[in-house]
Amino acid sequence: MKLYDCAMAPNPRRLRIFMAEKGIEIPKVEINILEGENTGPAFLAVNPRGLLPTLQLDDGTCFDEVMAICRYLEALYPWQPLLGRTPREQGLIESLQRKAEFDGMIAGSEVFRNQHPAFLSRSIPGGGGQTIPAIPALIERGSQTIERFYGWLESLLQHTPFLAGDSLSMADITALCAIDFHGWVKLGIPPGNKATADWYGRLNARPSAQA
Amino acid sequence: MKLYDCAMAPNPRRLRIFMAEKGIEIPKVEINILEGENTGPAFLAVNPRGLLPTLQLDDGTCFDEVMAICRYLEALYPWQPLLGRTPREQGLIESLQRKAEFDGMIAGSEVFRNQHPAFLSRSIPGGGGQTIPAIPALIERGSQTIERFYGWLESLLQHTPFLAGDSLSMADITALCAIDFHGWVKLGIPPGNKATADWYGRLNARPSAQA
Repeated sequence: MKLYDCAMAPNPRRLRIFMAEKGIEIPKVEINILEGENTGPAFLAVNPRGLLPTLQLDDGTCFDEVMAICRYLEALYPWQPLLGRTPREQGLIESLQRKAEFDGMIAGSEVFRNQHPAFLSRSIPGGGGQTIPAIPALIERGSQTIERFYGWLESLLQHTPFLAGDSLSMADITALCAIDFHGWVKLGIPPGNKATADWYGRLNARPSAQA
Repeated sequence: MKLYDCAMAPNPRRLRIFMAEKGIEIPKVEINILEGENTGPAFLAVNPRGLLPTLQLDDGTCFDEVMAICRYLEALYPWQPLLGRTPREQGLIESLQRKAEFDGMIAGSEVFRNQHPAFLSRSIPGGGGQTIPAIPALIERGSQTIERFYGWLESLLQHTPFLAGDSLSMADITALCAIDFHGWVKLGIPPGNKATADWYGRLNARPSAQA
């Protein structure tokens, strides 16, 4: 296997933390998103959508999407499960994971990509080399979604140590990466959201947070 | 179990086709999205995001997100698997499923919700009762994404009978529902995309397509 990665980007980080928690190591190829290397001809030959992370299997098959790669790795290396053991855990984790992804991670991307000069002509990921102009109105809409995300997170974490219960899951990892991503656009955990701040401190102290 | 459903909406349909293919039946409660019943107080008490479908378990736990509910049901009823048997199948199906979801289903939602009078103040799903104004520029951006979706689909289906290989998977179901959803905004399979038209005909002929 070979993992096309990008050290600075928030989505590849979700996968690296997942792998660190499970003790999985895969050789990496670093791709520079800021300079647009992911939409250059060499990488588009690997992944026509230009998305990172992308996993290349030994038979040459490539696939992208963090959750698809996590799903593959969890099935291959079932120890330290982060996507749930029982049917109920699996459903709940995927549901919470997706909330954190849509309202935290993707909303962050709306705010960031529609204002950062490097992304003004590629305002959504997945467009390959195509020009996708920024839509400034999405900055406000993304910020509004992020506000809902923090409200949801705080009300959830007042009742549970981790998002899906007593142990760490992919839902926590996605939420953590979303929060650190929000720092890029000067957003973050609202003052007074104590349960979220406590949870964040515990997650951030784990060695995997450095991955 | 109890399933909060909406007969007309494309995302609940993904789940109903998944259930029909596996022969799963769950008692349903119909919620009218067009009239905004999903953002009224009664349903927001069940799901604060107002999203459909929502599954309620016998212990009272509710969760939303089609893929989370499918994940739960696939773990509970593993026959006729639609999310993959081997690790490779599981990763590949989730990767393709998400492409169809983002570039087909969500792009369709961008085009539809930002122009239909009933959704002008709730232009993204998941906002509960909050006002989320339409952003007309998303109509064009969504249409551009849908164009990429059809190009991707055609090039894939020229080499394989179903998206992930020789048998039906959730990736096909999501793509089918996205295509029928595009009909709402007068978009659809481009003339000349023969492999896609053939595949669509085969899928649409299955009894599950009526679910």
